[in-house]
Amino acid sequence: MYIGIDLGGMSIKAGLVNEAYKIVATKTMPTGAERHGDEIAKDMAKLALELAEENGYKMQDIKAVGVGCPGACNSKTGICAFSANINFKDTHICEIITKELGVPAYLGNDANVAAFGEYKVINEEMESMLFVTLGTGVGGGIILNGKIYEGFNGVGAEIGHIQVDKNSENKCGCGRYGCWETEASVSALIRETKKAIEANPDCAMAKSVEGDLSRVNGRTSFDAAKAGDAVAQKIVDAFIKAVGEGVCSMINIFQPEVLLIGGAISKEGDYLLDPIRKLAETDTYKHNGVHTRIAAAQLGNDAGIIGAALLGE
Amino acid sequence: MYIGIDLGGMSIKAGLVNEAYKIVATKTMPTGAERHGDEIAKDMAKLALELAEENGYKMQDIKAVGVGCPGACNSKTGICAFSANINFKDTHICEIITKELGVPAYLGNDANVAAFGEYKVINEEMESMLFVTLGTGVGGGIILNGKIYEGFNGVGAEIGHIQVDKNSENKCGCGRYGCWETEASVSALIRETKKAIEANPDCAMAKSVEGDLSRVNGRTSFDAAKAGDAVAQKIVDAFIKAVGEGVCSMINIFQPEVLLIGGAISKEGDYLLDPIRKLAETDTYKHNGVHTRIAAAQLGNDAGIIGAALLGE
Repeated sequence: MYIGIDLGGMSIKAGLVNEAYKIVATKTMPTGAERHGDEIAKDMAKLALELAEENGYKMQDIKAVGVGCPGACNSKTGICAFSANINFKDTHICEIITKELGVPAYLGNDANVAAFGEYKVINEEMESMLFVTLGTGVGGGIILNGKIYEGFNGVGAEIGHIQVDKNSENKCGCGRYGCWETEASVSALIRETKKAIEANPDCAMAKSVEGDLSRVNGRTSFDAAKAGDAVAQKIVDAFIKAVGEGVCSMINIFQPEVLLIGGAISKEGDYLLDPIRKLAETDTYKHNGVHTRIAAAQLGNDAGIIGAALLGE
Repeated sequence: MYIGIDLGGMSIKAGLVNEAYKIVATKTMPTGAERHGDEIAKDMAKLALELAEENGYKMQDIKAVGVGCPGACNSKTGICAFSANINFKDTHICEIITKELGVPAYLGNDANVAAFGEYKVINEEMESMLFVTLGTGVGGGIILNGKIYEGFNGVGAEIGHIQVDKNSENKCGCGRYGCWETEASVSALIRETKKAIEANPDCAMAKSVEGDLSRVNGRTSFDAAKAGDAVAQKIVDAFIKAVGEGVCSMINIFQPEVLLIGGAISKEGDYLLDPIRKLAETDTYKHNGVHTRIAAAQLGNDAGIIGAALLGE
């Protein structure tokens, strides 16, 4: 049995994960992100202990505790150098957890760890896998030869922060303009949906939210497009193209065996993926039909816990 | 002693490379790129043999023969699946060379192999290195943990083919628009230099080529800018920015320990590199000052031969 911890700015989620890579129990507590980082690390250990005991396990039954954490995480040292939303400053997360619990502890960046979870559940021999997650931003993870690629300083795999539109007026959270994230995230989709509703107040999509922009979400344009609204279709097409163009760039760099697309929007399945696959047919290097398999991620919100747990496998 | 072969569309260049990673002798012959691929492979073996014998070596003295070849090369199988300019179709290059010479043979894509040569001569422990070469196109190579990264199908590391300007009117050789290659290659620099001369026929840069666009090359704008021409300075600044923006995207993905910039233009040294380093300070993720070292490549045209030779080290 393993314990995986998915640490976020709001909550610490811990899960017991078995040898079949399934979550068998979970427990959650508030992060208290403004506290000293060491306190947060100690609370992760405490939560893991409680989760184990409440489910009839002793710490000796737990092979490892893994943590997926937003920010710059060095898996070799177990140190989180910094996190935008949590008060970590060179916090020795693994050392603290191991000291508290007496079990091996592992650390990775949250998106990387989620990628690792998706990779593990596919459970196939593969040389390389890319994970692209579409949410507030465009995140990702790179798995090469079964290992997370994190760069020499632990802040690699920020694949959402390639510039795809150098003349864009859309400023990215990272400070640049026209990152893939500013064009292909769900935030970008919502931004463009709102613009289209403002410009076309009589379209079916606008009516679907009764003209109330605060009701727009990532599904608004997809739902309206499927119901036949041409304005919505244009937004959806542009969004899928923006996702696909970045996917093609990633394939040209990595030629990964598998490229997974995750985030809630990946539930659109082939409606989202087929146009991306078609674009990849024409817009990437390949030969002899040997090219990247593009598929939807499977684990949803569980990827973080499962990936973190299996860091210690 | 090793033999490295730098195969191009026009010529086959072979070099004897010693244990200190130096080329001690070379020999060249025409490629005859339209011939059957097997014949070209046999000629590479023949050239290697002649080179060895003319310099007093027997094949037993040669530890390995390596080939850097344009196109889709699978280093594991030693097969070149295809090459745009050479008549290879699933050509078993390594098998043919080993059969002819009785020594181990190795194969890699030409840009990847050049990257490997640059990596080897740095001769430092490093986790990761990216090589970006600015020429007719933007090529590159990725070295991770001392090994060439080529993707699962041998066509990876096409880092010049990330889209950086999705609305660009510049069509790339790969079929896409606005690839990094269309914005930051020497071809792009020459294109923009010509445009500027046409638009400003009285500028010093225009006078430097006597208004003759056929005399424009990759140095024209750099030379005129250094001599104080404002028109040229604008072209140079935009070019360096285009290089730098792509470099920042690559750093955000890979966070490599070292990023080398090669191609003839890298002789501009810090004049080219300092603005890129400055951009990387603001436009990439990093922490605690631990960030990628950006430097000029060292080997120039020798990188291909040296890298190929050392594939078998």
